[in-house]
Amino acid sequence: MRTLFTAEMSELAGDLVAMSRHVESAITRASEALLTQNVELAQAVIADDAKLDDLEETVDERCVLLIAQQQPVGLDLRTIIASLRISASLERMGDLAQHIAESARRAYPESAIPAEHLEIIEGMTVAAKKAASEVVALMETRDLNTAAGIVSDDDDLDRLHAQAYATLLSSGYSGSTQETLDISLLARYFERFGDHAVGVSRRIVYLVTGDHRGNRPRI
Amino acid sequence: MRTLFTAEMSELAGDLVAMSRHVESAITRASEALLTQNVELAQAVIADDAKLDDLEETVDERCVLLIAQQQPVGLDLRTIIASLRISASLERMGDLAQHIAESARRAYPESAIPAEHLEIIEGMTVAAKKAASEVVALMETRDLNTAAGIVSDDDDLDRLHAQAYATLLSSGYSGSTQETLDISLLARYFERFGDHAVGVSRRIVYLVTGDHRGNRPRI
Repeated sequence: MRTLFTAEMSELAGDLVAMSRHVESAITRASEALLTQNVELAQAVIADDAKLDDLEETVDERCVLLIAQQQPVGLDLRTIIASLRISASLERMGDLAQHIAESARRAYPESAIPAEHLEIIEGMTVAAKKAASEVVALMETRDLNTAAGIVSDDDDLDRLHAQAYATLLSSGYSGSTQETLDISLLARYFERFGDHAVGVSRRIVYLVTGDHRGNRPRI
Repeated sequence: MRTLFTAEMSELAGDLVAMSRHVESAITRASEALLTQNVELAQAVIADDAKLDDLEETVDERCVLLIAQQQPVGLDLRTIIASLRISASLERMGDLAQHIAESARRAYPESAIPAEHLEIIEGMTVAAKKAASEVVALMETRDLNTAAGIVSDDDDLDRLHAQAYATLLSSGYSGSTQETLDISLLARYFERFGDHAVGVSRRIVYLVTGDHRGNRPRI
C-alpha cells in the first residue's frame, strides 16, 4: 500500500513537471511569435493550450483519488493540496501565454508592440521565460535557490510593467489607441505570469521548509 | 464523530457564505467609488481586502484539517476540494474589486471613465453586482436557477467588455492615453470578475448535479 502510494505521489510530481514544461514552451513560443510576428507559431500556442487544460484535469483527479484511497495526513496531504493549487497556477500561466499569442495573432502582419515599447516588452519576455524555466527546475529539484530566482524575475516583471505604463503616459508617446490597448494588456499578462510563478514557488518553499516567510502564497 | 463532521462541514459552508458576502460588498462599494469619484469609499474597499484574505486562509486551513482528521470520501471529499477552489476564486474576485477601487483612487478627483464609456462601465457594474449577489444566494441555497443567472451576467460582462474595446477603437474616440489605459484595465477587471463568478457557479452545479455540463470549471 505504502509502495503504491509512493509511486502515485511520484507520478503526481511528474505530472506537475510536465505541466511546467508545457508552460515554459508556451511562454517561449508566445514570446517569439510576439517579437517576430510569427502567426503560425502564435496559432500553435493557442491550439496547444487545450493539452495543458487536460493535464490540469489529470492532476486534479489524481489528487482527489489519492486523498480518497490513501487517506494521507501531514506532509503528504499538504503536498497533494499544494499540487492542486500549483496545477491551477500553471494552467493559468498557460492561459496568459495564450493571451500573449492572441495579441500577436491579432496584430499580424504588423507587430503588436510600438517601437518605444520594444525594449521593455523584450525585457518582459526574457524575465518571463527565465521564471518559467526556473519553475520547471523547481518542480524537478525543489532547490530553494531556484525559488529565489523566481522572486527576482517577478521583481523585474513588476518594474518593467510599471515602465511600460510610464512610457505610455510620457509626453513623447504618440502610439495609436490600438497600440495603447495592446501594451496595457500585454504588460499586464506578463506581470500576472510572474505573480503566478511566485505563487507556485511559495507553495514549494512552504512544503520544503514549512516556512511561509511571512508571505502567504497568493494563488 | 459524524455529528462533529456535519457541524464542521456546515461551518465551512458558512465561511464561504461570509466570503461571498464580503465580495458582494467590495464590488458594490468599488463600483460606487468608481462612478461617483468617492475616494474614501475606494480607500475602504482597498483596506478591507485583507479581511477576505484572512477568510480564505481560514477556509483553506479548515479544509486541510477536515481532510486530515475526518478522512472524508465521495461527495464530502469533493465538497471540501471544491471549497478550496471556490475560496480561491472568491479571494480573486475581491482582488479585482480592489483593483477597480484603485483605479477610482488614482483618478480622483477626476473620474477614471471617459464620457463615451460611462454607459458601458455602468452596465458592467450592474452585471458584476448582480453576479456577486447571485453568488451569495448560490452559496446560501445551492439553487441552480441562480447558477444560470450568473452565466447570463457573465455573458453581459463579455459583451460589454467587447463593446468597451470597440468604443476605444472607434473613429470618434478621442480619449487621452491615461483614459485608454484605465478603460482597457477596468473592462478587463470586470470581465475577469464574471469569469470567476461562473467558475464558482460551475463548481456548485457539479456538486449538486454531478454534471460538468461539458464545461470543466475554469478557475
